[in-house]
Amino acid sequence: MALLYLSTPERAVAWQKIFADAGEEMVIGEEAVTDPAAITHIACWYPPADIARYPNVRVVISIGAGVDQIPALPGGVQLSRTVSSQIDGMVREWVVMATLMLHRGMPTYIEQSTREIWQAHAGLATRQTSIGIMGTGRVGLPVARTLIDLGFDVCGWSRSGRSVAGMPVYGERDLDRFLGQSNLLICLLPLTDQTRGLMSGAFFEKLPMGSRLVHAGRGAELDMDALHTALQNGRIESAMLDVTNPEPLPKGHWAWSDPRVIITPHIGSVTDYEQGARHVLAVIRADRGGEEIPGRVDQNLGY
Amino acid sequence: MALLYLSTPERAVAWQKIFADAGEEMVIGEEAVTDPAAITHIACWYPPADIARYPNVRVVISIGAGVDQIPALPGGVQLSRTVSSQIDGMVREWVVMATLMLHRGMPTYIEQSTREIWQAHAGLATRQTSIGIMGTGRVGLPVARTLIDLGFDVCGWSRSGRSVAGMPVYGERDLDRFLGQSNLLICLLPLTDQTRGLMSGAFFEKLPMGSRLVHAGRGAELDMDALHTALQNGRIESAMLDVTNPEPLPKGHWAWSDPRVIITPHIGSVTDYEQGARHVLAVIRADRGGEEIPGRVDQNLGY
Ligand SMILES: NC(=O)c1ccc[n+]([C@@H]2O[C@H](COP(=O)([O-])OP(=O)(O)OC[C@H]3O[C@@H](n4cnc5c(N)ncnc54)[C@H](OP(=O)(O)O)[C@@H]3O)[C@@H](O)[C@H]2O)c1
Ligand SMILES: NC(=O)c1ccc[n+]([C@@H]2O[C@H](COP(=O)([O-])OP(=O)(O)OC[C@H]3O[C@@H](n4cnc5c(N)ncnc54)[C@H](OP(=O)(O)O)[C@@H]3O)[C@@H](O)[C@H]2O)c1
Repeated sequence: MALLYLSTPERAVAWQKIFADAGEEMVIGEEAVTDPAAITHIACWYPPADIARYPNVRVVISIGAGVDQIPALPGGVQLSRTVSSQIDGMVREWVVMATLMLHRGMPTYIEQSTREIWQAHAGLATRQTSIGIMGTGRVGLPVARTLIDLGFDVCGWSRSGRSVAGMPVYGERDLDRFLGQSNLLICLLPLTDQTRGLMSGAFFEKLPMGSRLVHAGRGAELDMDALHTALQNGRIESAMLDVTNPEPLPKGHWAWSDPRVIITPHIGSVTDYEQGARHVLAVIRADRGGEEIPGRVDQNLGY
Repeated sequence: MALLYLSTPERAVAWQKIFADAGEEMVIGEEAVTDPAAITHIACWYPPADIARYPNVRVVISIGAGVDQIPALPGGVQLSRTVSSQIDGMVREWVVMATLMLHRGMPTYIEQSTREIWQAHAGLATRQTSIGIMGTGRVGLPVARTLIDLGFDVCGWSRSGRSVAGMPVYGERDLDRFLGQSNLLICLLPLTDQTRGLMSGAFFEKLPMGSRLVHAGRGAELDMDALHTALQNGRIESAMLDVTNPEPLPKGHWAWSDPRVIITPHIGSVTDYEQGARHVLAVIRADRGGEEIPGRVDQNLGY
């Protein structure tokens, strides 16, 4: 049993020590593979172009929290995404920050500052702001808990509609009702065939006028032209985007210079090298022990 | 018993109805006073220039959360500041937002956006960030609870050093030790003779290099020139100010155009008209019943 590591050299240094201490074998880069049949696990952002070269591979592990960049795997190969409380905590921080920034009118105050203008504006209380969270999984759940604790009125939307954190959660079919009552929408959905392009013109029309958008899912879930139209017609008042479409956001894109939009360069979470290595070790051990692997992705659902 | 109301006409409209419903007398403006001896309570930002005109005044009530704008009152007259869970909640929101914005490097990302640059930077985890909160009263306490819940390492500093929220609280004399371990400093102190000008050049020198500052107390607690020096020599990395010195911040002030500093125009809390009126009613009733008045200020301490 050996892990094939396909990522940056800096990360490799940290992983090597952890794998050596754990007594597990790790091969760095396809060039270093002498016996393809020995490779049982692959940790990567993009898997090898010719995965059939490794006849005994059992699990492919994404070194990120998402798996949308990984194409269909050969039958029988499992897929895992990196999960850790550190990732969940970092994304929670970013989403809570972004939500408060839009709730308290930071786009306006940042714009006013460029003109050196000191002027306060009225705002809504948290209990008057109805937040809708799309995706109530590992990240959506702690986000919901913190926002409820801050006094916001919070609802969720998920495929199953399973109730979590004591808040109402709408199911897939109730999207229109969910959107109709969301003054501030948070997207924490994985990118799948179902969620690609979800936030379109027709979608935004279902929100109340003057809603705000916090996006920390994946860029391709958002039609940026539709967002621009929604900002122009007042459907959306302001937005905070950690992921964009395209990503990175190119120079000259309208969103850079629109004062209603605040951009951060996909910093919601950055996987700590050590936590990433520990996740891969946990996958290898669970697999060896015949247990369910952590971060297991349902390849039919795509998340 | 009658209340003398000295504030804006808009607020008066809301208060009048609440006082009428409560069966309490309210006189709007000094011009409307026919019998000065009937005035027992005064609600104001600034008290009347000649308060001796009202021989039976028992309590002066500040319509704000602070009383630093109120000069010494005649002996025997009590002082109350407006307290409400709505104010505490709003300031908590602002401080949590500001703390996360500095923790996650928003000044850098906002500046990069003006140049249309997509570039992520490494940051610290919450547990690696030691936050120091100056003032652990009505507002400091819920701020501490939320930041602890987000995973930060939090300490307090107060006059008494009384432990709250299960966190270590340093007393007045332990300021140097407190500052020496604060990577991110939050000021929520009332403005008094002791706190005026507290944040000076010598004060900043006691912080670790590269600290961050969140200020939501009162502008006059901060020497802005000393802050400028601390930013230039790297002692302070970034700051978020809801209160400034002078306030409002005048056009042309260096802080408007320094990308390391984010300014909001004293929006930490805005007293809801209704909550303000309810506070005054509660003061009048407690006073009539011989109970301790809510929001009572110790006039020797100044808060
Ligand atoms: N910005 C960043 O740096 C960053 C960092 C980490 C993660 N993320 C993004 O956040 C996403 C969520 O992460 P997570 O760990 O919370 O994932 P997770 O635990 O798998 O949760 C996914 C949630 O999305 C819901 N969902 C999936 N497909 C749906 C559909 N078609 N319609 C409605 N709901 C659907 C799921 O519903 P069920 O509950 O019914 O299964 C679940 O609630 C990641 O996939 C990634 O895109 C971004
Ligand atoms: N930005 C805004 O919009 C906004 C809104 C509301 C309030 N504020 C500011 O926040 C301040 C605090 O409000 P609060 O309701 O939390 O007040 P509070 O309940 O009276 O608490 C004041 C805290 O400051 C401490 N303190 C006072 N003088 C001190 C000194 N010389 N040295 C060290 N600690 C000292 C007190 O110590 P002890 O615990 O030992 O008494 C107490 O912990 C207000 O006075 C106002 O300036 C700003």
